[in-house]
Amino acid sequence: MKIIIQPDYEQMSRAAMYILYGLLYEKAPLHLAITAGETPKRLYEIWTKELAASKPIESVVYYNFDEIPFAGVAGEGVTMQNLRSMFFTPAGIPENQIHALTMENFRQHDAYLESIGGLDAILIGIGKDGHFCGNLPGTTKWEDKTVEVKLEDHPHMRQGILEEVGGNEAKIPHSYTTMGPRSIMNIPKIIMIASGKQKADIVKKAFTGPVCPEIPSSIFQLHPDFTLILDKEAASGLEN
Amino acid sequence: MKIIIQPDYEQMSRAAMYILYGLLYEKAPLHLAITAGETPKRLYEIWTKELAASKPIESVVYYNFDEIPFAGVAGEGVTMQNLRSMFFTPAGIPENQIHALTMENFRQHDAYLESIGGLDAILIGIGKDGHFCGNLPGTTKWEDKTVEVKLEDHPHMRQGILEEVGGNEAKIPHSYTTMGPRSIMNIPKIIMIASGKQKADIVKKAFTGPVCPEIPSSIFQLHPDFTLILDKEAASGLEN
Amino acid sequence: MKIIIQPDYEQMSRAAMYILYGLLYEKAPLHLAITAGETPKRLYEIWTKELAASKPIESVVYYNFDEIPFAGVAGEGVTMQNLRSMFFTPAGIPENQIHALTMENFRQHDAYLESIGGLDAILIGIGKDGHFCGNLPGTTKWEDKTVEVKLEDHPHMRQGILEEVGGNEAKIPHSYTTMGPRSIMNIPKIIMIASGKQKADIVKKAFTGPVCPEIPSSIFQLHPDFTLILDKEAASGLEN
Amino acid sequence: MKIIIQPDYEQMSRAAMYILYGLLYEKAPLHLAITAGETPKRLYEIWTKELAASKPIESVVYYNFDEIPFAGVAGEGVTMQNLRSMFFTPAGIPENQIHALTMENFRQHDAYLESIGGLDAILIGIGKDGHFCGNLPGTTKWEDKTVEVKLEDHPHMRQGILEEVGGNEAKIPHSYTTMGPRSIMNIPKIIMIASGKQKADIVKKAFTGPVCPEIPSSIFQLHPDFTLILDKEAASGLEN
Repeated sequence: MKIIIQPDYEQMSRAAMYILYGLLYEKAPLHLAITAGETPKRLYEIWTKELAASKPIESVVYYNFDEIPFAGVAGEGVTMQNLRSMFFTPAGIPENQIHALTMENFRQHDAYLESIGGLDAILIGIGKDGHFCGNLPGTTKWEDKTVEVKLEDHPHMRQGILEEVGGNEAKIPHSYTTMGPRSIMNIPKIIMIASGKQKADIVKKAFTGPVCPEIPSSIFQLHPDFTLILDKEAASGLEN
Repeated sequence: MKIIIQPDYEQMSRAAMYILYGLLYEKAPLHLAITAGETPKRLYEIWTKELAASKPIESVVYYNFDEIPFAGVAGEGVTMQNLRSMFFTPAGIPENQIHALTMENFRQHDAYLESIGGLDAILIGIGKDGHFCGNLPGTTKWEDKTVEVKLEDHPHMRQGILEEVGGNEAKIPHSYTTMGPRSIMNIPKIIMIASGKQKADIVKKAFTGPVCPEIPSSIFQLHPDFTLILDKEAASGLEN
Repeated sequence: MKIIIQPDYEQMSRAAMYILYGLLYEKAPLHLAITAGETPKRLYEIWTKELAASKPIESVVYYNFDEIPFAGVAGEGVTMQNLRSMFFTPAGIPENQIHALTMENFRQHDAYLESIGGLDAILIGIGKDGHFCGNLPGTTKWEDKTVEVKLEDHPHMRQGILEEVGGNEAKIPHSYTTMGPRSIMNIPKIIMIASGKQKADIVKKAFTGPVCPEIPSSIFQLHPDFTLILDKEAASGLEN
Repeated sequence: MKIIIQPDYEQMSRAAMYILYGLLYEKAPLHLAITAGETPKRLYEIWTKELAASKPIESVVYYNFDEIPFAGVAGEGVTMQNLRSMFFTPAGIPENQIHALTMENFRQHDAYLESIGGLDAILIGIGKDGHFCGNLPGTTKWEDKTVEVKLEDHPHMRQGILEEVGGNEAKIPHSYTTMGPRSIMNIPKIIMIASGKQKADIVKKAFTGPVCPEIPSSIFQLHPDFTLILDKEAASGLEN
């Protein structure tokens, strides 16, 4: 585990972008899964600017690692829409460099990844409850590959999913898909970003406490190439 | 997880030797931890013969990953004595290419490994109870690095340790040391060998069942570069 | 440059096989180019036996790196026929794991390789004149990628090519294809084998003398991951 | 060969910095050689700022790859003084993370590098005459490792060296040292930067023309992991 602590959100975003940017030229083709959400917003802004300035890099394929469909609405779900608006569209990433994980193809996802030699790297965030990707506490098991998580099995998640689909009850799906702990841990390079005081407590618990299913991200203590990029506030629970 | 199934013990031993032999020339210097015990016996015999035939490879450093000291006896413990008689001595490995983990230095072991860039690879076996290295069920936690395991905390292990020290009660130590799950999982390349019908059941449980502390080796389902080399008997519980 | 010196042809063949075998499990999918000719005969015999003993490895794709067509005969040329009879057929390598470089596709070969991320490794031999692949002295330039070599430009090569096509004048082609020095040097891992007294002189010249076009294989002094596997006779010109 | 073309010097400097920055966290310990001179000035400014913002990275060791001593003056030469003032000092790199190649130790340099597993990466520039490091046309041979270049053998270089030592005749040394083509090509990752119209011609010649001793940098066409970072002006001779 390498921990990089930056003074603030801006610097954390830049450090993460540099590391991703370096990967783009390290290996071709590069298969890279990236996170939606709030934390990477600034990262994608900076990255978009850099990518716009230089020649397109044709040898990268981008992946999402989870998806929440909109009930009753055809087309892409919450994650892909978010990735498009934050990154793919402003950065001008062509369609043939985007591979979407969906409710339709998730059962073949691991086999597909294996056939291309696997993902090379993944950028993820951490939730205040310690979740990564769609692996909220109690929803998946360590040995799970890419799976479907049904809301009826986890009724307390309803409120969170409601917010994800924009507060519209009619759009709450009955399930979502996520790469599970096994699929994620099998990726050779994992980069996690976290920012702000509200993450300080879970960062401390996940990376200095026990590895346990109650805090899914604690499993990354066991990964041979895990890089954690924090701003000072998110790191404030770590001693030293 | 790559699974290699060989027809018998001889072929399994040879396949493992080839993979290790390839590593010796892949990276210099190579830091390699290897297992004592019954399973690798033939592997070391073949390997010794090959190493004897060619020029010495000076850029490899060999490590043990656990040690059971003999009570009241100065000098090396069960693991190092075993590795010496099976491999280091017949293969003529010079002292400066052997780094022993001991009861004296285990507290500095992880920091030392970090300072040299970490181990590059490790060869391990699996016990009928699913243990790897000295991580017997209940003795260590997922998040443990290199630790001391005290027999007083695990009285049922007394019989096993007695056998390890040659059946002499006077030589039973009060503790042993082992690299824990975190130290082992953080190694970028893990190779496990297993042979014989008596391993078929645990192989099936560990690699097709849940990842759980009761079966320590199940954690390797989560490693990005884990190679499992089996003979047909050890693989007989796996479907396909 | 790593130099491995083995006592005899048998041991040299085994050392090379071990290193290749290790690669098969190192990376998936693995794109591996291999050499035809006399030197690897025993290597392929041993390798075939090992591959036959274990489950097929589906994630390897094998490539030839040069081809001499038979004039007036449709179908595969000298190199592919040789590789099939020595290795692909006895080892039972399925068609979809074999990618043939031919007179028809050589102009697209480098672009094709680039699209799949490049070859991972290559096994080559060395000629008594210092050639590697089809790069005989004077036929290609350092900067050449995969090219066509015309016999009319190199009339002295006629006799050699005549022998390659079985001594039948009617079958002498007007050109052959080979991956050039640039295509070969751009492969991240290069393994060369050489055996016998008749190679001792060129081995010495190529690897302890100047890097010069007159001895094409001397260029490998400049490669960051070049492994030279010799038997004692082939190494007899090297001091120490 | 990967070519990255950026709109201007500022963006070229940033792209190079991102790639280097990514390497710092890719591998520990990282052994990195870096270039002095004009081209990297902005790169080091940006990099210094980034390094100052985050926790020190203790696992990197920095190296120079050539040195021009000041005649009659004890202490460091032109290259190290330049690297210190541009980068080591403002970035606060501690002494134990700096390894200087000097006139005193150059004969042991390659053996030393081999003992630590070699350099991991190098940042270099290109001269208008196609030189890299201290390998000016005619001064070194492809097969040279780290060597001494004597001015008496290359009288036309006197003027250039005079400028390097600040225009003071008394300080012109009788020789300098440089890692030669073989030492540089043996590094697994090479990153070259070039900026400005005055480099456009040599960039075109070196990377689209013949590989020849007259243009030393042309040898990088043969390297398996060579990244060339240009601004538009330096790239203006390349078609497309």
